[in-house]
Amino acid sequence: MRYSIEGVEGLPEITEGDDLAALIVEALPAPLADGDILVVTSKIVSKAEGRVVRADDREQAITDETVRVVATRRTGDSVTRIVENRLGVVGAAAGVDASNAPEGTVLLLPVDPDASARSLATGIRALTGARVGVLLSDTLGRAWREGQTDIAIGAAGVHVFDDLRGQTDATGKPLAVTMPCVADELAGAAELVKGKAAGVPVAVVRGLGRLVGDLDLPGARTIVRPAERDLFRQGADEAYDEGYRAGFDEAQAEGPLRGA
Amino acid sequence: MRYSIEGVEGLPEITEGDDLAALIVEALPAPLADGDILVVTSKIVSKAEGRVVRADDREQAITDETVRVVATRRTGDSVTRIVENRLGVVGAAAGVDASNAPEGTVLLLPVDPDASARSLATGIRALTGARVGVLLSDTLGRAWREGQTDIAIGAAGVHVFDDLRGQTDATGKPLAVTMPCVADELAGAAELVKGKAAGVPVAVVRGLGRLVGDLDLPGARTIVRPAERDLFRQGADEAYDEGYRAGFDEAQAEGPLRGA
Repeated sequence: MRYSIEGVEGLPEITEGDDLAALIVEALPAPLADGDILVVTSKIVSKAEGRVVRADDREQAITDETVRVVATRRTGDSVTRIVENRLGVVGAAAGVDASNAPEGTVLLLPVDPDASARSLATGIRALTGARVGVLLSDTLGRAWREGQTDIAIGAAGVHVFDDLRGQTDATGKPLAVTMPCVADELAGAAELVKGKAAGVPVAVVRGLGRLVGDLDLPGARTIVRPAERDLFRQGADEAYDEGYRAGFDEAQAEGPLRGA
Repeated sequence: MRYSIEGVEGLPEITEGDDLAALIVEALPAPLADGDILVVTSKIVSKAEGRVVRADDREQAITDETVRVVATRRTGDSVTRIVENRLGVVGAAAGVDASNAPEGTVLLLPVDPDASARSLATGIRALTGARVGVLLSDTLGRAWREGQTDIAIGAAGVHVFDDLRGQTDATGKPLAVTMPCVADELAGAAELVKGKAAGVPVAVVRGLGRLVGDLDLPGARTIVRPAERDLFRQGADEAYDEGYRAGFDEAQAEGPLRGA
């Protein structure tokens, strides 16, 4: 078992309306083969789709992209809102980001990253004849652990989970609860060659063809755990405050101390 | 920029006292070179260190390994405790796991995974003369996202973060808050060849030598965000309940309704 990941260098600066599939195929260091997976930084998809707003409108853009505020962190004068965005992804600033955006602008995430991934995969399959998968990646912080990792916000033609439920481990015991999120692992693996500073927005993964399939496989949206099933659907401070108000109101509604 | 990951097959079943460094070096498909990184499933380190208890003692083992219960999920009759373990890692069952453990037993995490990684890296460097890094991996669920990814719980001779603070993006803007956790990304990348069912507990990463350094680099313990600085240090239900009790008590202490 062996695979490789290579960064795709030399892509031009992407602007609205660019044919991203054609530009990526042109920049490839070697022809694609069946089973290759392209991991594409969602930022260049946002640029091709014209998902750019003026930096002055950043706060409004974050508000527009936010479905739900999950937690708020105040550090001195700055406030970071951890929010659930339209896509169900929980992170800082709803994916609205100035880095690698044209001067004076910020980038929003693609409207529908799974659809963007499907469109890219369709285009690249047509241009190359190779049955490839496409992942769209974004950079995200995590609960409990410092730093960020790249994760998959869009997927087409790639299994996002390696569903092992029902299989057995090396000793023959069932792997009951194991469902590795291979799409997130691939996005992180690709970050190691793409980097943030290097301007390499695409990586090609070769040797993991077992994860590639039809274009109608479930997308990255299926990785999102619905808030109502998440034990961490709300920040600890926010949940405490909500509980405090409910408890306070309840005690007041009950009137004088019971048994007093 | 290109790197490869290869699974190391043919390792024997590991038991207490085994010289893991020697066994891994014997099983390598090709000689190691300076800058290679070995990602080792922490399970085989646990086995070599004798961190095995009887399955009957599983609940007690989880309790012993737990520093703090973060959240509790009840599904029918079964209860999953999300806990912070001795190592600061937040996850289910404190890393106590039956999969790939000898029949009738469960495995605990290594006592000090950073020390275990350092010992392995020292041994492998001595045996091969190659300046390699070592990561110890474990499989973990996440907040907000379904499925699991492999993350790093031990590290030696590898930078766990690619610290970009102070660098600039491709447009020249400072990358203020970006600190990719490359150790976790590498652990996830290696999972893609190791798998859970395949019995391949070690992978060799070649081509990322820029991440390899001295054996006294900060370990994986530094990835853990201290609970007091974490917005999700407690499950939403647990925080709500704690707030509710505090609010209720406060209202009762205040006595009759103010202004009533």
